[in-house]
Amino acid sequence: MLNIAITAGGTSEDIDGVRKLTNVSTGNLGWHCLEAALNYLLEKNRTDFRIYYILTDTAFRKELSAEQRSYVDFIAVTDAESVYNTVNNLTSTVNITHFIHSMAISDFTFSYAVSAKGLAKEIQTYIEQNGNSDAKAIEQIILSPQSRYSENRKISSEHSLILGLRTTQKVISLIKKNNPDTVLVGFKLLRNVDKQGLINEAKKLSDKNGCDWVFANELGSISGSAHTGLLISGSKIVAAPTGKEQIAETIIDAILHLNN
Amino acid sequence: MLNIAITAGGTSEDIDGVRKLTNVSTGNLGWHCLEAALNYLLEKNRTDFRIYYILTDTAFRKELSAEQRSYVDFIAVTDAESVYNTVNNLTSTVNITHFIHSMAISDFTFSYAVSAKGLAKEIQTYIEQNGNSDAKAIEQIILSPQSRYSENRKISSEHSLILGLRTTQKVISLIKKNNPDTVLVGFKLLRNVDKQGLINEAKKLSDKNGCDWVFANELGSISGSAHTGLLISGSKIVAAPTGKEQIAETIIDAILHLNN
Repeated sequence: MLNIAITAGGTSEDIDGVRKLTNVSTGNLGWHCLEAALNYLLEKNRTDFRIYYILTDTAFRKELSAEQRSYVDFIAVTDAESVYNTVNNLTSTVNITHFIHSMAISDFTFSYAVSAKGLAKEIQTYIEQNGNSDAKAIEQIILSPQSRYSENRKISSEHSLILGLRTTQKVISLIKKNNPDTVLVGFKLLRNVDKQGLINEAKKLSDKNGCDWVFANELGSISGSAHTGLLISGSKIVAAPTGKEQIAETIIDAILHLNN
Repeated sequence: MLNIAITAGGTSEDIDGVRKLTNVSTGNLGWHCLEAALNYLLEKNRTDFRIYYILTDTAFRKELSAEQRSYVDFIAVTDAESVYNTVNNLTSTVNITHFIHSMAISDFTFSYAVSAKGLAKEIQTYIEQNGNSDAKAIEQIILSPQSRYSENRKISSEHSLILGLRTTQKVISLIKKNNPDTVLVGFKLLRNVDKQGLINEAKKLSDKNGCDWVFANELGSISGSAHTGLLISGSKIVAAPTGKEQIAETIIDAILHLNN
C-alpha cells in the first residue's frame, strides 16, 4: 500500500483578522505533482494507494475525474501551526510511504503590533528606571512590548507600525522523526544564488531533515511555463527539468520508481 | 457619457520577493458591482458608458459576455502605491462620473526587517555613546535602523523578526480632489462595532473624503451569502441589504438612479 502525502500552496498568518502575512506560492507545482502521481499510478493499474493532499485556501485546484478523486483525501490548512498539527497527526497515524513537501510555510507568525512611539517610550522608561542600557533587556522589550496594540484595539493607520514576528515550528523536521522510512522530497526556493548555491542549500536541507531528494530553484526562474530547477539527491544533480509539468513528472518518476 | 471606476480586491505589499503583506479581501463585492452596473445600464439600453475596473491579481474574476466586455477596461494593480498612481492618473485624465471604491488597500507597506537582537544592540550603542535615553531618538532608530537586513541578505528564519511598516498614501482622498463632481462610494470594514459605530465611522470617512455614500460592514458579518452591511449617506442609513449581489444592486441603484 502506498500512502503519499503532498503539501501545496502558501500559508497565511493572521495579523488582526483583516491583514495577513503570506507568500507568493500558488500551489501550482503541488497540483502538478498530484496529477503526475495519479497518472503514473492509474496507468500502471495500481489501486493500492491513497494520496493525502494538504492545501491552503489560496492553493490552485482543478476538478479531478471521479476515479481520480476516489484516491485523494483533501485536507485544508491555513497557517503554519495548522500545517504542523495536520502533518504531525497524519504522519503519526498513517504509514506515509512518500512525502512531497512543496508547500511554502511561513517561517514567521504574528506576535504583536506596536507603534514606534509606544515602543520607544517603553524602552526609554525602562532605561530611566533602571539606570542602565543593557542590550539583553532592550531586546526583551522588543520581543514582547507591554505597549503593544491589544487584540481588540484598532491599529491606527496614521503612523508607522512595528510588527513583531516569532518563528514557527519546522514542519519538515517532523516527517522523518515520525516515520524514518518515509521517502521525503523537500523544496527550496532561494534568491540570488547560482547553481552551486542551490546545491549547497539543498544539501543542508537534506542533512538536517533527512530529505531523499530536494527540488531547488531560484526565485528568478520559477515564473509560468519557464519554471526551472534542480532535483538534487545528496550533493548530486539528478535532473534539471523545465516547466512545472515536467518537474512534477520527474519527481514522481524518481520517487515511485524505487517501489515498483 | 458615464465613466464609472470600480476598484476591487486586496493589495499585496512585497516584503522580500517571497513574503508579502496582504488582507482577506476577495474582490467578490467589487465584481458584483461590475455585473450590477453592466446589467443596469444594458437593460436600459445605454451605450454611452465605460467602466474602468481596477483589480489586484488575487481579485475574483469571471468571464463576461463579448458585449459586456466591450464596455470594460481592466486595469491590473499590485500594491498600494500602484493603486495610488493608477487612480491618480485615471481621475486626472478621464472625467470619472462615478467611483465605487471597494478595494481593500493596505494602510501600510514594508519599510525594513531587522532582528530584535540587532535593533536592541543599535539602541543600546546609541544610548551609551550619547549618554542619554531620549524617546525621540530611540523612536528614530526604530523607524529606520541601520542594522536592518539588506535587500539581498537572506532573512534568517531561526530568530524572531521585527518588521517596520510605513503608512501608504490614501487613495480615497485623491478622487474628489481630482474631480469634485465624481459621485463617490466608499467602503468601511470594521471589527467589533455595533450599528452606531458603523454609522460614526462611515460619517468620518464621508467627511474626510467627500463620499456620497459609504457601505459599512463589520468583519463578523461579511462571509459568503450572509454578507450584510449598511449603505449610509451622511449619518443616515439608506439601505441594509443582505448578500453580495443585493448589496451591489443597491449601490448601483442608488448612484446611477440620480443620473437618469
